Amino acid sequence: MDWLELLKPITKHKDRRSPMYLRITQCIRSAIEDGRLAEEQRLPPDRELAKLLDIDRSTVARAYDQLAADGLVYSHVGRGTFVHHSPAKPTSQPRTARGGYDRIVWPDKFSRSSATVDAIVQRQPAVNAQAGTISFAAGSPTEEFFPAKDFESIVQELLASSKAPEVFGYTQPEGHPALRSEVLAYLKQQGIAASDEEILIVSGSQQGIDLVARTLINPDDTVLTEDPTYFWAICTFAANGARCVPVSTAPDGVRLDVFENVASRVEAKLFYTMPSFHNPTGSTLSVERRQKLLQLAREHQVPILEDNFVGDLCYTTPLPSLKTLDGQAGTVIYQGTFSKALCPGMRVGWLVAAPDVMARLRLVKRTCDLSTNTLSQLILAEYLRRGLYQEHLQLVQNAYRKRLDVMCLALQEHTRQWLSFDRPQGGMFIWAKLPPGYSARELLSFAQREGVIYSPGDVFFISSGNSEYMRLNFIQQNAEQIDEGIRRLGKALQAYSNSRKRVAHPAYVVAESTFI
Amino acid sequence: MDWLELLKPITKHKDRRSPMYLRITQCIRSAIEDGRLAEEQRLPPDRELAKLLDIDRSTVARAYDQLAADGLVYSHVGRGTFVHHSPAKPTSQPRTARGGYDRIVWPDKFSRSSATVDAIVQRQPAVNAQAGTISFAAGSPTEEFFPAKDFESIVQELLASSKAPEVFGYTQPEGHPALRSEVLAYLKQQGIAASDEEILIVSGSQQGIDLVARTLINPDDTVLTEDPTYFWAICTFAANGARCVPVSTAPDGVRLDVFENVASRVEAKLFYTMPSFHNPTGSTLSVERRQKLLQLAREHQVPILEDNFVGDLCYTTPLPSLKTLDGQAGTVIYQGTFSKALCPGMRVGWLVAAPDVMARLRLVKRTCDLSTNTLSQLILAEYLRRGLYQEHLQLVQNAYRKRLDVMCLALQEHTRQWLSFDRPQGGMFIWAKLPPGYSARELLSFAQREGVIYSPGDVFFISSGNSEYMRLNFIQQNAEQIDEGIRRLGKALQAYSNSRKRVAHPAYVVAESTFI
Repeated sequence: MDWLELLKPITKHKDRRSPMYLRITQCIRSAIEDGRLAEEQRLPPDRELAKLLDIDRSTVARAYDQLAADGLVYSHVGRGTFVHHSPAKPTSQPRTARGGYDRIVWPDKFSRSSATVDAIVQRQPAVNAQAGTISFAAGSPTEEFFPAKDFESIVQELLASSKAPEVFGYTQPEGHPALRSEVLAYLKQQGIAASDEEILIVSGSQQGIDLVARTLINPDDTVLTEDPTYFWAICTFAANGARCVPVSTAPDGVRLDVFENVASRVEAKLFYTMPSFHNPTGSTLSVERRQKLLQLAREHQVPILEDNFVGDLCYTTPLPSLKTLDGQAGTVIYQGTFSKALCPGMRVGWLVAAPDVMARLRLVKRTCDLSTNTLSQLILAEYLRRGLYQEHLQLVQNAYRKRLDVMCLALQEHTRQWLSFDRPQGGMFIWAKLPPGYSARELLSFAQREGVIYSPGDVFFISSGNSEYMRLNFIQQNAEQIDEGIRRLGKALQAYSNSRKRVAHPAYVVAESTFI
Repeated sequence: MDWLELLKPITKHKDRRSPMYLRITQCIRSAIEDGRLAEEQRLPPDRELAKLLDIDRSTVARAYDQLAADGLVYSHVGRGTFVHHSPAKPTSQPRTARGGYDRIVWPDKFSRSSATVDAIVQRQPAVNAQAGTISFAAGSPTEEFFPAKDFESIVQELLASSKAPEVFGYTQPEGHPALRSEVLAYLKQQGIAASDEEILIVSGSQQGIDLVARTLINPDDTVLTEDPTYFWAICTFAANGARCVPVSTAPDGVRLDVFENVASRVEAKLFYTMPSFHNPTGSTLSVERRQKLLQLAREHQVPILEDNFVGDLCYTTPLPSLKTLDGQAGTVIYQGTFSKALCPGMRVGWLVAAPDVMARLRLVKRTCDLSTNTLSQLILAEYLRRGLYQEHLQLVQNAYRKRLDVMCLALQEHTRQWLSFDRPQGGMFIWAKLPPGYSARELLSFAQREGVIYSPGDVFFISSGNSEYMRLNFIQQNAEQIDEGIRRLGKALQAYSNSRKRVAHPAYVVAESTFI
């Protein structure tokens, strides 16, 4: 297949008005429709096509996403992107004597939304981390503070007590009463006054996002998200058939002028936001801007999902949540989780919403998994009841604040020449920016060689480009590893910087995905 | 509102060709469209309207379901069914000076699929069970066999060992390697040869159904299900926008003539089936008919989801699963769970599918909850590794077989005059049939008064009517309670039978839902 020939309409008219990715989409769509590209034809890997056309790889990735969303191509993990069977046409599978088939033709059966998710996930870079590699890439907290001892004592007590049968049975879809009540008491301390009919225990906050999406989204509905935002939220909205419309962000959080502009033009079902210690940018929205956001959301009828995933990891004076500021107005669905400040393996979080909305969320929860794991709920309820969570928070806040200091210092010492960043007020991520023209993806192969990895920032964007950002997790490694890891990053930056004077597009290894 | 007047076109033409529920739908739709029914107008409860029109309540329920699916009405749990805001029209919410709103108008924001689920769930009868009531209603196993002692020893070992940090961290989306490997070994004994890339650990089999639906279903796609079938599967398919098309069943399982007829007319994305010890009918499909079903499914390109939820509770010689008989043909997605034979609170099950299908399922799993609770997975892996699950199965199979005997005897002794049933070969449910004209819903209020409850059968049907069936769980209560419960059921039947000579439609209590 001569791809350059097929894509000539693009390369000949680089100056045309329509964005590059749409021009690529259009060329490939035409070729599929008029038969120049056959069913099951493999498209070139995005980095190859990008090299061929001398454009950014993320532009090609975006074009492929669009083609997948339109049902024209599909991806196999690890194999590539292929032209889809047309659902309107009979498949090419040989028919049996009776006129049927002798095997299911699965590609005809996959949903469009799952194809879109597949296409988006292809964007994730992934790394074969060698032994000894220091990772700043993940979204996980530190193993060393996991509450093994406390949980052991709680589980022993639970299983030996008269509560044992309860541990093994179904709980209500809305969550175990003991945990609901403990979480409500904890939220009250944070300024969120909610009643028992306003809370839902969920199987981790990923499920919370999914439940909200499923409760609100019809196919092709619009969800507004900060740009950049949490990668798996983008995937979950796509899995629910939503179109994500990006709202740009600044170092002080979401841009309200952009939000107002978009919200007044587009009928949106939801604005998904992380006002405190944002993923990936680490930014925090001021109280005044929180109030303004709420006002705009009400005026333009855009419900808010406030994801307070690291609200408990605050290293300065905490700000009131959107939910707190919203009072009883019911604009906000609020989400919290134990996954970052405590440990992710329990898969327990919570949603808080006005009673009418909550009734619908609880119903949808049943269709997803009936109810959340009972043992985890009872362990966490008891952990809260004993006051151990508050103790734990003090411990990790102190430890993580120190790690933040160490990483900031190390970045200044080893990478000042190339990286700029703002110190976050809480959470787990530093968002660092390379000089113009540098690519965090290209840097990654140099970093791997030096034994350090991070998340390239472009995967978190809805919009394309933005290759110069990187996300660094500063809570997972101890001070020594942070310092050594950033030192390695500095070496990688030096090597990358030197190489830029020689080659344009170094390759990097793609393998099993390890970024969240 | 004069409902009789509004619905005149129905009552005047009872002999018209179109089904009654569609005629009701049509009348109400017209009244909404021409403004006779205003936004937020409450529709009469289905049992009232049924009484008014002198038709079966399930027909009205079906009409309301259809209206909800069309986005014309919505339901509030416990409050009733209301005419929806029209999304096309501006809402009635007062605007602010700036032309916006000062509160979110939530009913405008809910998804159609969640409205449909809401409407379906309204069908569930529910019961205020007094203390001392004997319940045959639930889908749960017996508390007395829950493995508290074994789990206690396993958890203690896990948390004290070097595995402790692992217990608290994320596992891979596909499940913990230890559990995947133990489940694969266990499946091998059952004649299912699958590789590690063909298995996915899910957060209970409800999630399994949801993942399969999300991976395959586009809005308005068709799913075939046995009629009757598992209630929450109907809800989950609806939550994914599917239209369920019923395939009728006989005492020996799904009717293959009907399946062939439907599958050749309709392009279906899935056939959801429980070939062994079906919920709710308890029926089992013979080996010959399993093979025929597989052949028809391949010929007509209908993937199968085989839900083997109680396959381990077999009281005779077990039959090979569809997955076993299908070999390497890839027609079947297979599902198993620990929830019935062991305990439901862990929320752990598994899916097995061909590698291509599995890759997509694993991806979709991430968008739903990232991964399943780690502690539960490690407990169950160790429980299997120690051979304790096999021991447990022998224990419960013997116990439950005896309970089945007791219930069959008790039914013959106390209810022979009214109830007919087939003895199931395994599982947990007896499906009993009342005489023509009797209604299991009407009987329920008499049963409650006597201190016994069960699941009325009509909720399990996609098609309307079928009011004469009831589902009895025979594994949850001990022999004494079973005998006493069925004796009470006999008394209720006598009272109901007497009352039928006097009144037509006794009311029954609707409250918190307790049936699964």
